[in-house]
Amino acid sequence: MKKPIGIFDSGVGGLTVYRAIRSAFPEEDLIYFGDTARVPYGPKSPNTIIEYSVQNARFLLQQGIKTMIVACNTSSSVAIPYLRQLTDIPIIGVIDPGSEVAVRSSVSGKIGVIGTEGTVRSEAYSKAIKLHKPEAQVFSKACPLFVPLVEEGWQDHAVAKHVVRDYLFSMLELDIDTLVLGCTHYPLLSHVIQDYMGNSVKLVDSADAITLHLRSLLPPEHDGRPGKDNFYVSDNEDKFASIGGRILNNPMRNLRRVRLFESWFID
Amino acid sequence: MKKPIGIFDSGVGGLTVYRAIRSAFPEEDLIYFGDTARVPYGPKSPNTIIEYSVQNARFLLQQGIKTMIVACNTSSSVAIPYLRQLTDIPIIGVIDPGSEVAVRSSVSGKIGVIGTEGTVRSEAYSKAIKLHKPEAQVFSKACPLFVPLVEEGWQDHAVAKHVVRDYLFSMLELDIDTLVLGCTHYPLLSHVIQDYMGNSVKLVDSADAITLHLRSLLPPEHDGRPGKDNFYVSDNEDKFASIGGRILNNPMRNLRRVRLFESWFID
Repeated sequence: MKKPIGIFDSGVGGLTVYRAIRSAFPEEDLIYFGDTARVPYGPKSPNTIIEYSVQNARFLLQQGIKTMIVACNTSSSVAIPYLRQLTDIPIIGVIDPGSEVAVRSSVSGKIGVIGTEGTVRSEAYSKAIKLHKPEAQVFSKACPLFVPLVEEGWQDHAVAKHVVRDYLFSMLELDIDTLVLGCTHYPLLSHVIQDYMGNSVKLVDSADAITLHLRSLLPPEHDGRPGKDNFYVSDNEDKFASIGGRILNNPMRNLRRVRLFESWFID
Repeated sequence: MKKPIGIFDSGVGGLTVYRAIRSAFPEEDLIYFGDTARVPYGPKSPNTIIEYSVQNARFLLQQGIKTMIVACNTSSSVAIPYLRQLTDIPIIGVIDPGSEVAVRSSVSGKIGVIGTEGTVRSEAYSKAIKLHKPEAQVFSKACPLFVPLVEEGWQDHAVAKHVVRDYLFSMLELDIDTLVLGCTHYPLLSHVIQDYMGNSVKLVDSADAITLHLRSLLPPEHDGRPGKDNFYVSDNEDKFASIGGRILNNPMRNLRRVRLFESWFID
Protein backbone atom coordinates (compact mmCIF):
# COMPACT_ATOMS: atom_id res chain seq x y z
CA MET A 1 0.00 0.00 0.00
CA LYS A 2 1.21 3.50 -0.88
CA LYS A 3 1.64 5.94 1.95
CA PRO A 4 0.49 9.47 1.12
CA ILE A 5 2.43 12.73 1.12
CA GLY A 6 0.83 15.27 3.48
CA ILE A 7 0.72 18.99 2.73
CA PHE A 8 -0.68 21.74 4.91
CA ASP A 9 -1.24 25.45 4.55
CA SER A 10 -3.19 28.17 6.36
CA GLY A 11 -5.75 28.15 3.57
CA VAL A 12 -6.12 27.89 -0.17
CA GLY A 13 -2.73 29.36 -1.19
CA GLY A 14 -0.81 26.10 -0.64
CA LEU A 15 -2.69 24.62 -3.56
CA THR A 16 -0.08 26.29 -5.79
CA VAL A 17 2.37 23.88 -4.10
CA TYR A 18 -0.08 20.99 -4.36
CA ARG A 19 -0.52 21.62 -8.08
CA ALA A 20 3.25 21.52 -8.68
CA ILE A 21 3.68 18.32 -6.65
CA ARG A 22 0.72 16.61 -8.30
CA SER A 23 2.15 17.41 -11.72
CA ALA A 24 5.65 16.16 -10.83
CA PHE A 25 4.43 13.06 -8.95
CA PRO A 26 1.33 11.79 -10.76
CA GLU A 27 1.31 8.42 -8.98
CA GLU A 28 1.67 9.66 -5.39
CA ASP A 29 -1.29 9.77 -3.05
CA LEU A 30 -1.59 13.30 -1.67
CA ILE A 31 -3.43 14.69 1.36
CA TYR A 32 -3.92 18.43 1.70
CA PHE A 33 -5.07 20.26 4.80
CA GLY A 34 -6.07 23.95 4.64
CA ASP A 35 -6.82 25.73 7.92
CA THR A 36 -9.52 27.97 6.46
CA ALA A 37 -11.16 28.42 9.89
CA ARG A 38 -8.15 30.35 11.18
CA VAL A 39 -6.60 31.83 8.03
CA PRO A 40 -4.56 34.05 7.78
CA TYR A 41 -1.48 33.03 9.79
CA GLY A 42 0.71 35.91 8.58
CA PRO A 43 -0.29 38.59 11.10
CA LYS A 44 -0.44 36.20 14.08
CA SER A 45 2.18 35.65 16.78
CA PRO A 46 4.91 32.97 16.57
CA ASN A 47 3.36 31.06 19.51
CA THR A 48 -0.05 30.92 17.87
CA ILE A 49 1.43 29.94 14.50
CA ILE A 50 3.40 27.13 16.20
CA GLU A 51 0.28 25.88 18.03
CA TYR A 52 -1.81 25.85 14.87
CA SER A 53 0.97 24.19 12.86
CA VAL A 54 1.43 21.44 15.47
CA GLN A 55 -2.31 20.71 15.40
CA ASN A 56 -2.33 20.56 11.61
CA ALA A 57 0.74 18.30 11.56
CA ARG A 58 -0.83 15.93 14.13
CA PHE A 59 -3.88 15.62 11.92
CA LEU A 60 -1.78 14.73 8.87
CA LEU A 61 0.34 12.26 10.88
CA GLN A 62 -2.88 10.49 11.94
CA GLN A 63 -3.50 9.87 8.23
CA GLY A 64 -0.29 7.83 7.98
CA ILE A 65 1.73 10.12 5.72
CA LYS A 66 5.32 9.34 4.73
CA THR A 67 6.50 12.94 4.18
CA MET A 68 5.14 16.29 5.32
CA ILE A 69 5.24 19.46 3.23
CA VAL A 70 4.69 22.72 5.10
CA ALA A 71 3.34 24.77 2.21
CA CYS A 72 2.71 27.82 4.39
CA ASN A 73 5.68 30.18 4.49
CA THR A 74 4.64 31.65 7.83
CA SER A 75 4.49 28.18 9.44
CA SER A 76 7.73 27.14 7.71
CA SER A 77 9.52 30.16 9.09
CA VAL A 78 8.80 29.46 12.78
CA ALA A 79 7.27 26.02 13.37
CA ILE A 80 9.49 23.40 11.64
CA PRO A 81 11.69 22.59 14.71
CA TYR A 82 8.51 21.95 16.74
CA LEU A 83 7.03 19.72 14.05
CA ARG A 84 10.26 17.67 13.93
CA GLN A 85 9.67 16.78 17.58
CA LEU A 86 6.42 15.04 16.60
CA THR A 87 7.78 12.55 14.08
CA ASP A 88 10.78 11.03 12.29
CA ILE A 89 9.38 11.32 8.75
CA PRO A 90 10.92 14.00 6.52
CA ILE A 91 9.39 17.45 6.93
CA ILE A 92 9.99 19.97 4.17
CA GLY A 93 9.20 23.63 4.58
CA VAL A 94 9.20 26.16 1.76
CA ILE A 95 12.01 28.34 3.13
CA ASP A 96 15.06 26.13 2.44
CA PRO A 97 14.10 25.08 -1.09
CA GLY A 98 13.14 28.64 -2.02
CA SER A 99 16.38 30.00 -0.60
CA GLU A 100 18.48 27.47 -2.53
CA VAL A 101 16.78 28.34 -5.80
CA ALA A 102 17.22 32.07 -5.07
CA VAL A 103 20.94 31.66 -4.41
CA ARG A 104 21.41 29.66 -7.61
CA SER A 105 19.41 32.21 -9.60
CA SER A 106 21.14 35.34 -8.34
CA VAL A 107 24.27 36.62 -10.08
CA SER A 108 24.66 39.91 -8.19
CA GLY A 109 23.87 38.38 -4.79
CA LYS A 110 21.24 41.06 -4.21
CA ILE A 111 18.08 39.14 -3.36
CA GLY A 112 14.65 40.48 -2.41
CA VAL A 113 12.17 38.55 -0.28
CA ILE A 114 8.50 39.41 0.09
CA GLY A 115 6.17 37.65 2.51
CA THR A 116 3.72 38.06 5.38
CA GLU A 117 4.58 39.97 8.56
CA GLY A 118 5.29 36.67 10.36
CA THR A 119 7.66 35.42 7.67
CA VAL A 120 9.55 38.70 7.34
CA ARG A 121 9.77 39.20 11.12
CA SER A 122 11.31 35.72 11.51
CA GLU A 123 14.14 36.57 9.07
CA ALA A 124 14.02 32.89 8.10
CA TYR A 125 14.74 33.52 4.39
CA SER A 126 17.56 35.90 5.13
CA LYS A 127 19.23 33.36 7.43
CA ALA A 128 18.73 30.46 5.01
CA ILE A 129 20.04 32.43 2.02
CA LYS A 130 23.15 33.54 3.94
CA LEU A 131 23.80 29.94 4.98
CA HIS A 132 24.26 29.11 1.28
CA LYS A 133 25.88 32.39 0.30
CA PRO A 134 27.23 34.40 3.24
CA GLU A 135 28.03 37.45 1.10
CA ALA A 136 24.45 37.74 -0.21
CA GLN A 137 22.52 40.94 0.48
CA VAL A 138 18.92 40.18 1.38
CA PHE A 139 16.19 42.84 1.36
CA SER A 140 12.86 41.88 2.92
CA LYS A 141 9.45 43.50 2.76
CA ALA A 142 6.17 42.43 4.34
CA CYS A 143 3.18 42.78 1.99
CA PRO A 144 0.15 42.04 4.22
CA LEU A 145 -2.48 43.15 1.72
CA PHE A 146 -1.42 40.68 -0.99
CA VAL A 147 -3.21 37.74 0.69
CA PRO A 148 -6.60 39.48 1.08
CA LEU A 149 -6.28 40.82 -2.48
CA VAL A 150 -5.85 37.28 -3.82
CA GLU A 151 -8.56 35.91 -1.53
CA GLU A 152 -10.85 38.62 -2.92
CA GLY A 153 -9.97 37.52 -6.48
CA TRP A 154 -8.59 40.99 -7.30
CA GLN A 155 -5.27 39.82 -8.78
CA ASP A 156 -6.08 41.47 -12.13
CA HIS A 157 -7.68 44.54 -10.62
CA ALA A 158 -6.23 48.07 -10.81
CA VAL A 159 -6.05 48.08 -7.01
CA ALA A 160 -3.61 45.13 -7.19
CA LYS A 161 -1.25 47.22 -9.36
CA HIS A 162 -1.59 50.12 -6.96
CA VAL A 163 -0.77 47.97 -3.93
CA VAL A 164 2.12 46.19 -5.70
CA ARG A 165 3.61 49.59 -6.59
CA ASP A 166 3.28 50.81 -3.02
CA TYR A 167 4.91 47.80 -1.45
CA LEU A 168 7.63 47.29 -4.05
CA PHE A 169 8.82 50.75 -5.10
CA SER A 170 11.57 50.62 -2.47
CA MET A 171 12.64 47.20 -3.84
CA LEU A 172 13.02 48.68 -7.34
CA GLU A 173 15.79 51.01 -6.20
CA LEU A 174 17.79 48.24 -4.55
CA ASP A 175 18.84 46.75 -7.89
CA ILE A 176 18.00 43.15 -6.92
CA ASP A 177 18.16 40.46 -9.63
CA THR A 178 16.04 37.86 -7.80
CA LEU A 179 12.82 38.19 -5.82
CA VAL A 180 11.52 35.34 -3.64
CA LEU A 181 7.72 35.12 -3.53
CA GLY A 182 7.76 34.09 0.11
CA CYS A 183 4.06 33.31 0.44
CA THR A 184 2.05 30.68 -1.42
CA HIS A 185 -0.56 33.26 -2.39
CA TYR A 186 1.89 35.48 -4.20
CA PRO A 187 2.40 33.38 -7.36
CA LEU A 188 -1.20 34.30 -8.15
CA LEU A 189 -0.03 37.94 -8.34
CA SER A 190 3.21 37.12 -10.18
CA HIS A 191 2.17 38.73 -13.49
CA VAL A 192 1.56 42.07 -11.75
CA ILE A 193 4.77 41.78 -9.73
CA GLN A 194 6.84 40.80 -12.79
CA ASP A 195 5.38 43.70 -14.80
CA TYR A 196 6.30 46.15 -12.09
CA MET A 197 9.77 44.76 -11.27
CA GLY A 198 10.72 44.25 -14.94
CA ASN A 199 12.05 41.19 -16.73
CA SER A 200 15.59 41.53 -15.38
CA VAL A 201 14.32 40.37 -11.99
CA LYS A 202 13.81 36.62 -11.64
CA LEU A 203 10.84 35.61 -9.47
CA VAL A 204 11.29 32.51 -7.30
CA ASP A 205 8.12 30.51 -6.67
CA SER A 206 8.10 28.21 -3.60
CA ALA A 207 6.03 25.63 -5.45
CA ASP A 208 8.71 24.93 -8.06
CA ALA A 209 11.46 25.03 -5.45
CA ILE A 210 9.77 22.52 -3.18
CA THR A 211 9.07 20.14 -6.04
CA LEU A 212 12.74 20.11 -7.03
CA HIS A 213 13.66 19.41 -3.42
CA LEU A 214 11.10 16.63 -3.09
CA ARG A 215 12.41 14.97 -6.24
CA SER A 216 15.88 14.71 -4.73
CA LEU A 217 14.45 13.19 -1.56
CA LEU A 218 11.77 10.79 -2.66
CA PRO A 219 12.00 7.76 -4.95
CA PRO A 220 8.87 8.33 -7.02
CA GLU A 221 6.02 5.80 -6.91
CA HIS A 222 5.62 3.77 -10.10
CA ASP A 223 2.80 1.32 -9.62
CA GLY A 224 0.81 2.39 -12.66
CA ARG A 225 -2.08 3.61 -10.50
CA PRO A 226 -2.88 7.33 -10.59
CA GLY A 227 -2.33 9.01 -7.21
CA LYS A 228 -5.34 9.81 -5.05
CA ASP A 229 -6.25 13.37 -4.13
CA ASN A 230 -7.62 14.11 -0.67
CA PHE A 231 -8.47 17.55 0.63
CA TYR A 232 -9.42 18.59 4.16
CA VAL A 233 -10.32 22.07 5.33
CA SER A 234 -11.41 23.47 8.68
CA ASP A 235 -14.09 25.72 7.18
CA ASN A 236 -15.87 26.89 4.03
CA GLU A 237 -15.68 23.80 1.81
CA ASP A 238 -17.66 25.51 -0.94
CA LYS A 239 -15.47 28.60 -1.16
CA PHE A 240 -12.36 26.41 -1.00
CA ALA A 241 -13.69 24.20 -3.79
CA SER A 242 -14.46 27.20 -5.93
CA ILE A 243 -11.11 29.03 -5.57
CA GLY A 244 -9.21 25.74 -5.38
CA GLY A 245 -10.80 24.35 -8.52
CA ARG A 246 -9.51 27.37 -10.42
CA ILE A 247 -5.98 26.99 -9.02
CA LEU A 248 -5.90 23.27 -9.83
CA ASN A 249 -7.68 23.70 -13.15
CA ASN A 250 -9.91 20.80 -12.17
CA PRO A 251 -13.06 20.40 -10.12
CA MET A 252 -12.16 19.37 -6.56
CA ARG A 253 -13.11 15.93 -5.38
CA ASN A 254 -12.65 14.18 -2.03
CA LEU A 255 -12.99 17.39 -0.04
CA ARG A 256 -14.08 17.13 3.61
CA ARG A 257 -14.37 19.42 6.57
CA VAL A 258 -12.40 18.76 9.76
CA ARG A 259 -13.56 20.29 13.03
CA LEU A 260 -11.85 21.53 16.14
CA PHE A 261 -12.57 20.67 19.72
CA GLU A 262 -11.69 23.77 21.69
CA SER A 263 -12.37 25.86 24.75
CA TRP A 264 -10.79 28.98 26.16
CA PHE A 265 -8.63 29.20 29.23
CA ILE A 266 -6.66 32.06 30.73
CA ASP A 267 -2.94 31.59 30.19
CA MET B 1 -20.12 44.77 44.02
CA LYS B 2 -20.57 45.97 40.46
CA LYS B 3 -21.01 43.36 37.78
CA PRO B 4 -19.17 44.17 34.56
CA ILE B 5 -20.52 44.61 31.04
CA GLY B 6 -18.89 42.14 28.64
CA ILE B 7 -18.05 43.02 25.04
CA PHE B 8 -16.57 40.76 22.41
CA ASP B 9 -15.34 41.20 18.85
CA SER B 10 -13.28 39.20 16.36
CA GLY B 11 -10.35 41.56 16.98
CA VAL B 12 -9.47 45.16 17.55
CA GLY B 13 -12.36 46.79 15.64
CA GLY B 14 -14.85 46.40 18.50
CA LEU B 15 -12.84 48.92 20.47
CA THR B 16 -14.75 51.62 18.57
CA VAL B 17 -17.80 50.26 20.45
CA TYR B 18 -15.85 49.97 23.69
CA ARG B 19 -14.76 53.60 23.39
CA ALA B 20 -18.34 54.81 22.96
CA ILE B 21 -19.60 52.73 25.90
CA ARG B 22 -16.75 53.81 28.15
CA SER B 23 -17.49 57.44 27.38
CA ALA B 24 -21.25 57.07 28.00
CA PHE B 25 -20.86 54.87 31.11
CA PRO B 26 -17.79 56.11 32.97
CA GLU B 27 -18.60 54.20 36.17
CA GLU B 28 -19.31 50.78 34.64
CA ASP B 29 -16.75 48.00 34.83
CA LEU B 30 -16.09 46.73 31.31
CA ILE B 31 -14.52 43.51 30.03
CA TYR B 32 -13.47 43.25 26.39
CA PHE B 33 -12.52 40.09 24.55
CA GLY B 34 -10.89 40.25 21.08
CA ASP B 35 -10.39 36.95 19.22
CA THR B 36 -7.18 38.06 17.53
CA ALA B 37 -6.02 34.43 17.11
CA ARG B 38 -8.83 33.74 14.64
CA VAL B 39 -9.60 37.16 13.18
CA PRO B 40 -11.18 37.85 10.68
CA TYR B 41 -14.66 36.32 11.07
CA GLY B 42 -16.13 38.02 7.97
CA PRO B 43 -15.11 35.47 5.32
CA LYS B 44 -15.82 32.40 7.49
CA SER B 45 -18.89 30.16 7.42
CA PRO B 46 -21.95 30.69 9.66
CA ASN B 47 -21.20 27.44 11.56
CA THR B 48 -17.67 28.50 12.35
CA ILE B 49 -18.74 32.02 13.33
CA ILE B 50 -21.38 30.55 15.66
CA GLU B 51 -18.83 28.17 17.25
CA TYR B 52 -16.31 30.95 17.84
CA SER B 53 -19.00 33.31 19.18
CA VAL B 54 -20.31 30.70 21.63
CA GLN B 55 -16.77 30.12 22.94
CA ASN B 56 -16.20 33.85 23.35
CA ALA B 57 -19.56 34.29 25.10
CA ARG B 58 -18.81 31.39 27.50
CA PHE B 59 -15.55 33.07 28.42
CA LEU B 60 -17.29 36.38 29.19
CA LEU B 61 -20.05 34.63 31.16
CA GLN B 62 -17.36 32.99 33.32
CA GLN B 63 -16.31 36.51 34.30
CA GLY B 64 -19.74 37.20 35.83
CA ILE B 65 -20.98 39.85 33.40
CA LYS B 66 -24.47 41.37 33.68
CA THR B 67 -24.92 42.27 29.98
CA MET B 68 -23.21 41.08 26.83
CA ILE B 69 -22.45 43.29 23.83
CA VAL B 70 -21.67 41.51 20.58
CA ALA B 71 -19.58 44.24 18.97
CA CYS B 72 -18.79 42.10 15.92
CA ASN B 73 -21.31 42.59 13.12
CA THR B 74 -20.55 39.20 11.60
CA SER B 75 -21.24 37.43 14.92
CA SER B 76 -24.30 39.62 15.56
CA SER B 77 -25.75 38.69 12.21
CA VAL B 78 -25.73 34.90 12.75
CA ALA B 79 -24.90 33.94 16.34
CA ILE B 80 -27.24 35.86 18.69
CA PRO B 81 -29.97 33.17 18.94
CA TYR B 82 -27.30 30.62 19.92
CA LEU B 83 -25.84 32.94 22.53
CA ARG B 84 -29.29 33.49 24.05
CA GLN B 85 -29.42 29.75 24.77
CA LEU B 86 -26.39 30.11 27.07
CA THR B 87 -27.74 32.71 29.48
CA ASP B 88 -30.65 34.88 30.62
CA ILE B 89 -28.69 38.15 30.81
CA PRO B 90 -29.41 40.72 28.07
CA ILE B 91 -27.41 40.23 24.89
CA ILE B 92 -27.15 43.16 22.52
CA GLY B 93 -25.83 42.79 19.00
CA VAL B 94 -24.99 45.69 16.72
CA ILE B 95 -27.57 44.88 14.03
CA ASP B 96 -30.79 45.96 15.76
CA PRO B 97 -29.51 49.26 17.22
CA GLY B 98 -27.81 50.15 13.92
CA SER B 99 -30.97 49.35 11.97
CA GLU B 100 -33.14 51.48 14.26
CA VAL B 101 -30.85 54.47 13.91
CA ALA B 102 -30.75 53.99 10.13
CA VAL B 103 -34.54 53.91 9.89
CA ARG B 104 -34.85 57.06 12.00
CA SER B 105 -32.18 58.81 9.96
CA SER B 106 -33.51 57.98 6.51
CA VAL B 107 -36.07 60.27 4.87
CA SER B 108 -36.19 58.62 1.45
CA GLY B 109 -36.22 55.06 2.84
CA LYS B 110 -33.28 54.20 0.58
CA ILE B 111 -30.66 52.77 2.90
CA GLY B 112 -27.25 51.33 2.06
CA VAL B 113 -25.48 48.72 4.19
CA ILE B 114 -21.82 47.81 3.91
CA GLY B 115 -20.21 44.96 5.82
CA THR B 116 -18.21 41.76 5.61
CA GLU B 117 -19.20 38.85 3.37
CA GLY B 118 -20.72 37.05 6.37
CA THR B 119 -22.83 40.03 7.42
CA VAL B 120 -24.07 40.80 3.91
CA ARG B 121 -24.78 37.14 3.12
CA SER B 122 -26.92 36.83 6.27
CA GLU B 123 -29.17 39.74 5.15
CA ALA B 124 -29.52 40.53 8.87
CA TYR B 125 -29.53 44.31 8.40
CA SER B 126 -32.00 44.17 5.57
CA LYS B 127 -34.41 42.05 7.64
CA ALA B 128 -34.03 44.23 10.75
CA ILE B 129 -34.53 47.47 8.80
CA LYS B 130 -37.66 46.13 7.09
CA LEU B 131 -39.06 45.05 10.45
CA HIS B 132 -39.08 48.71 11.46
CA LYS B 133 -39.96 50.11 8.05
CA PRO B 134 -41.37 47.51 5.64
CA GLU B 135 -41.32 49.90 2.67
CA ALA B 136 -37.57 50.64 3.04
CA GLN B 137 -35.28 49.77 0.15
CA VAL B 138 -32.02 48.26 1.41
CA PHE B 139 -28.93 47.96 -0.78
CA SER B 140 -26.07 45.85 0.59
CA LYS B 141 -22.47 45.52 -0.46
CA ALA B 142 -19.69 43.38 1.00
CA CYS B 143 -16.36 45.21 1.29
CA PRO B 144 -13.89 42.48 2.33
CA LEU B 145 -10.74 44.57 1.84
CA PHE B 146 -11.76 47.31 4.29
CA VAL B 147 -10.78 45.22 7.34
CA PRO B 148 -7.25 44.36 6.14
CA LEU B 149 -6.78 47.99 5.02
CA VAL B 150 -7.58 49.20 8.54
CA GLU B 151 -5.53 46.43 10.16
CA GLU B 152 -2.62 47.57 7.96
CA GLY B 153 -3.14 51.16 9.13
CA TRP B 154 -3.76 52.35 5.57
CA GLN B 155 -6.96 54.31 6.29
CA ASP B 156 -5.38 57.56 5.04
CA HIS B 157 -3.53 55.93 2.16
CA ALA B 158 -4.32 56.53 -1.54
CA VAL B 159 -5.09 52.80 -1.85
CA ALA B 160 -7.92 53.26 0.69
CA LYS B 161 -9.54 55.89 -1.57
CA HIS B 162 -9.11 53.60 -4.56
CA VAL B 163 -10.74 50.64 -2.78
CA VAL B 164 -13.57 52.79 -1.37
CA ARG B 165 -14.32 54.06 -4.88
CA ASP B 166 -14.35 50.55 -6.28
CA TYR B 167 -16.69 49.12 -3.68
CA LEU B 168 -19.02 52.11 -3.43
CA PHE B 169 -19.43 53.50 -6.95
CA SER B 170 -22.54 51.35 -7.44
CA MET B 171 -23.95 52.73 -4.14
CA LEU B 172 -23.53 56.30 -5.42
CA GLU B 173 -26.00 55.72 -8.23
CA LEU B 174 -28.68 54.31 -5.93
CA ASP B 175 -29.43 57.70 -4.37
CA ILE B 176 -29.38 56.45 -0.77
CA ASP B 177 -29.56 59.00 2.04
CA THR B 178 -28.21 56.74 4.81
CA LEU B 179 -25.32 54.29 4.84
CA VAL B 180 -24.86 51.80 7.68
CA LEU B 181 -21.22 51.07 8.51
CA GLY B 182 -21.99 47.42 9.25
CA CYS B 183 -18.56 46.46 10.57
CA THR B 184 -16.76 47.85 13.61
CA HIS B 185 -13.63 48.50 11.56
CA TYR B 186 -15.38 50.79 9.11
CA PRO B 187 -15.73 53.89 11.32
CA LEU B 188 -11.94 54.12 11.05
CA LEU B 189 -12.46 54.66 7.28
CA SER B 190 -15.46 56.97 7.71
CA HIS B 191 -13.68 60.13 6.53
CA VAL B 192 -12.78 58.46 3.21
CA ILE B 193 -16.27 56.98 2.85
CA GLN B 194 -17.98 60.30 3.71
CA ASP B 195 -15.76 62.17 1.23
CA TYR B 196 -16.68 59.75 -1.54
CA MET B 197 -20.41 59.47 -0.77
CA GLY B 198 -20.88 63.21 -0.16
CA ASN B 199 -22.41 65.05 2.77
CA SER B 200 -26.00 64.31 1.78
CA VAL B 201 -25.47 60.71 2.90
CA LYS B 202 -25.64 60.13 6.65
CA LEU B 203 -23.26 57.45 7.95
CA VAL B 204 -24.55 55.23 10.78
CA ASP B 205 -21.89 54.00 13.20
CA SER B 206 -22.72 50.88 15.25
CA ALA B 207 -20.86 52.25 18.24
CA ASP B 208 -23.20 55.22 18.69
CA ALA B 209 -26.26 53.11 17.98
CA ILE B 210 -25.38 50.48 20.56
CA THR B 211 -24.65 53.09 23.21
CA LEU B 212 -28.08 54.65 22.73
CA HIS B 213 -29.65 51.22 23.02
CA LEU B 214 -27.67 50.35 26.14
CA ARG B 215 -28.73 53.61 27.79
CA SER B 216 -32.41 52.66 27.40
CA LEU B 217 -31.74 49.23 28.89
CA LEU B 218 -29.37 49.76 31.74
CA PRO B 219 -29.76 51.94 34.85
CA PRO B 220 -26.29 53.47 34.94
CA GLU B 221 -23.95 52.79 37.86
CA HIS B 222 -23.41 55.79 40.13
CA ASP B 223 -21.13 54.75 42.95
CA GLY B 224 -18.55 57.46 42.46
CA ARG B 225 -15.87 54.92 41.56
CA PRO B 226 -14.45 55.05 38.02
CA GLY B 227 -15.24 51.89 36.05
CA LYS B 228 -12.49 49.31 35.58
CA ASP B 229 -11.15 48.40 32.14
CA ASN B 230 -10.22 44.80 31.39
CA PHE B 231 -9.03 43.52 28.05
CA TYR B 232 -8.46 39.95 26.93
CA VAL B 233 -7.18 38.79 23.54
CA SER B 234 -6.41 35.37 22.12
CA ASP B 235 -3.19 36.51 20.41
CA ASN B 236 -0.79 39.37 19.75
CA GLU B 237 -1.15 41.46 22.93
CA ASP B 238 1.48 43.92 21.75
CA LYS B 239 -0.09 44.65 18.38
CA PHE B 240 -3.51 44.90 20.03
CA ALA B 241 -2.16 47.33 22.62
CA SER B 242 -0.57 49.46 19.94
CA ILE B 243 -3.58 49.71 17.58
CA GLY B 244 -6.01 49.70 20.52
CA GLY B 245 -4.22 52.47 22.35
CA ARG B 246 -4.66 54.68 19.30
CA ILE B 247 -8.39 53.86 19.03
CA LEU B 248 -8.97 54.51 22.74
CA ASN B 249 -6.64 57.51 22.82
CA ASN B 250 -5.10 56.06 25.96
CA PRO B 251 -2.41 53.50 26.69
CA MET B 252 -4.01 50.09 27.30
CA ARG B 253 -3.82 48.63 30.78
CA ASN B 254 -5.10 45.33 32.19
CA LEU B 255 -4.54 43.45 28.95
CA ARG B 256 -4.08 39.67 29.13
CA ARG B 257 -3.88 36.81 26.71
CA VAL B 258 -6.41 33.95 26.81
CA ARG B 259 -5.52 30.61 25.26
CA LEU B 260 -7.45 27.84 23.55
CA PHE B 261 -7.40 24.16 24.24
CA GLU B 262 -8.07 22.51 20.94
CA SER B 263 -7.54 19.46 18.77
CA TRP B 264 -8.80 18.46 15.35
CA PHE B 265 -11.37 15.80 14.61
CA ILE B 266 -13.04 14.76 11.39
CA ASP B 267 -16.65 15.90 11.31
